[in-house]
Amino acid sequence: MISTLVLPEEGKKLLSNFNVIEKEFTQEDLRRAEVLLAWPKEVSQLIDNMERLKIIQTFSAGVDDLPFQKIKEKEIKVFSNAGAYSVSVAEHAWALILTLAKGTNIRKRRESYPITGKTILILGAGGIGSEVAKIAKNGFSMRVIGASRSFKGNYDVKIPLNEVDKYIGDADVIVDTLPLNKFTKDFLNYERLTKTKQKVIIVNVGRGETVNKNDIEKILKERPDLRFGTDVFWRNDKEDFDVNLWSLDNFAGTLHVGGGYASQEILYNAINKACENLSSYLKLGKADNEVNINDYLG
Amino acid sequence: MISTLVLPEEGKKLLSNFNVIEKEFTQEDLRRAEVLLAWPKEVSQLIDNMERLKIIQTFSAGVDDLPFQKIKEKEIKVFSNAGAYSVSVAEHAWALILTLAKGTNIRKRRESYPITGKTILILGAGGIGSEVAKIAKNGFSMRVIGASRSFKGNYDVKIPLNEVDKYIGDADVIVDTLPLNKFTKDFLNYERLTKTKQKVIIVNVGRGETVNKNDIEKILKERPDLRFGTDVFWRNDKEDFDVNLWSLDNFAGTLHVGGGYASQEILYNAINKACENLSSYLKLGKADNEVNINDYLG
Repeated sequence: MISTLVLPEEGKKLLSNFNVIEKEFTQEDLRRAEVLLAWPKEVSQLIDNMERLKIIQTFSAGVDDLPFQKIKEKEIKVFSNAGAYSVSVAEHAWALILTLAKGTNIRKRRESYPITGKTILILGAGGIGSEVAKIAKNGFSMRVIGASRSFKGNYDVKIPLNEVDKYIGDADVIVDTLPLNKFTKDFLNYERLTKTKQKVIIVNVGRGETVNKNDIEKILKERPDLRFGTDVFWRNDKEDFDVNLWSLDNFAGTLHVGGGYASQEILYNAINKACENLSSYLKLGKADNEVNINDYLG
Repeated sequence: MISTLVLPEEGKKLLSNFNVIEKEFTQEDLRRAEVLLAWPKEVSQLIDNMERLKIIQTFSAGVDDLPFQKIKEKEIKVFSNAGAYSVSVAEHAWALILTLAKGTNIRKRRESYPITGKTILILGAGGIGSEVAKIAKNGFSMRVIGASRSFKGNYDVKIPLNEVDKYIGDADVIVDTLPLNKFTKDFLNYERLTKTKQKVIIVNVGRGETVNKNDIEKILKERPDLRFGTDVFWRNDKEDFDVNLWSLDNFAGTLHVGGGYASQEILYNAINKACENLSSYLKLGKADNEVNINDYLG
């Protein structure tokens, strides 16, 4: 087994039954390894040299940077680390919601949008969604609508993603926690955005491309009442933070730090969760977060 | 009775047993009125012409702009509107906390400070404090310490204000909701601020002068780990927002909008609460928020 990171003590312990080569490994190690713990981009660089690879466990929650075609051909099983950063990302989503509601990012007086008792629509009801929902319900007494394929956590109303258009006009706050796959690309497009309520707050902590870049820019210019915040941006080669939105008063952005940038406490907890999940699969044959490869192909 | 504002329908109804002159009034109206509904600064302008004045109900929660010496001499009873803006101000406090924790106000990557499960110290456990506490406990599973003379709401630990020095070092987040009076002026001074934990977040939604202006500037420059946000500023003639702090990365500010600036929904609710309180006093002889004049004198 290869881990591209040195594991924290707890992670080492969880995998102590296995021969784990951490951080520094030879071509021969690669050739022989059957299990890989890594970030998705590292997998793309390593996979061609790993002829025996059977299992990948990512350190990250999102996996859209994996080389899915090759993974499918080689019949490799993949587990994501979904949930490991959920609390941190949910706090970040709330930071963006309240920043926009109260105008804490601009030295100007702006209308305050009330939050308590209002309605929130959460796109993607997984680990992050359930934590966003918990804060909404318990902290701010909100009515919580979840839109997802499967549901983790508590929602007042649960709907499938393809019924969002019926409910989007009810929401005072919309939080996008969607992973990027063929179903979610450009999910928030111009047509859908025009169905939102006056004074809506929209926050994206999922993946940049789940919001259409040109459409959000267009609607932010047309509707000063609509406020949009994002921690995730659109990618060319890599995530490109240099977008036109920064000059707009109804925009707030952060540079993809929701997972807990530079907080060792958060990173260590996340790595340990990846080790726990992998260990459970290797020892007991069951684990969370198995990735459905076909969601990402074609 | 004189009200300096036109009352919303609900407020009118609550006071329909009384002769209320709204917004436009003559010198003779002033001379004869026994009850005044007004903002504190208006009281200063009107009081000399109100020889029969017995009761003041303010629209605002804070009353430190009232002419207390004259009020004492004339033996006028004063009720504040404490609590009417509590939810809005508490949301604002949380907006500042999360803005600082996650760096949503600056286009730079900064270390994310975790919030969930941490310890919060709330100075002033009245209406605002209790709402801040509720969000902390229910939304973010925090340990909540309240420091106050009297307590509204739920706290894990309750201490008198003069014991804050024993607990201030425990807090990951400190929220100042203090009114300004002789006990609270410069409450957060240099000595006390040096006792705070590394990576503490301090937010002021009480009154500017409860934090010493020079001391907070000094410590923000000395300790980049300490992050400070405020919605309230220090006054000369009037509140002066033009302070040196704006250029610092560990500062976030808003221009005294926590009460719900420009949100008619929030303002109307608050005026109605003032009417309800006054009506209760006039009809039943009991009301909340009687102001202790001596707290503000000498």
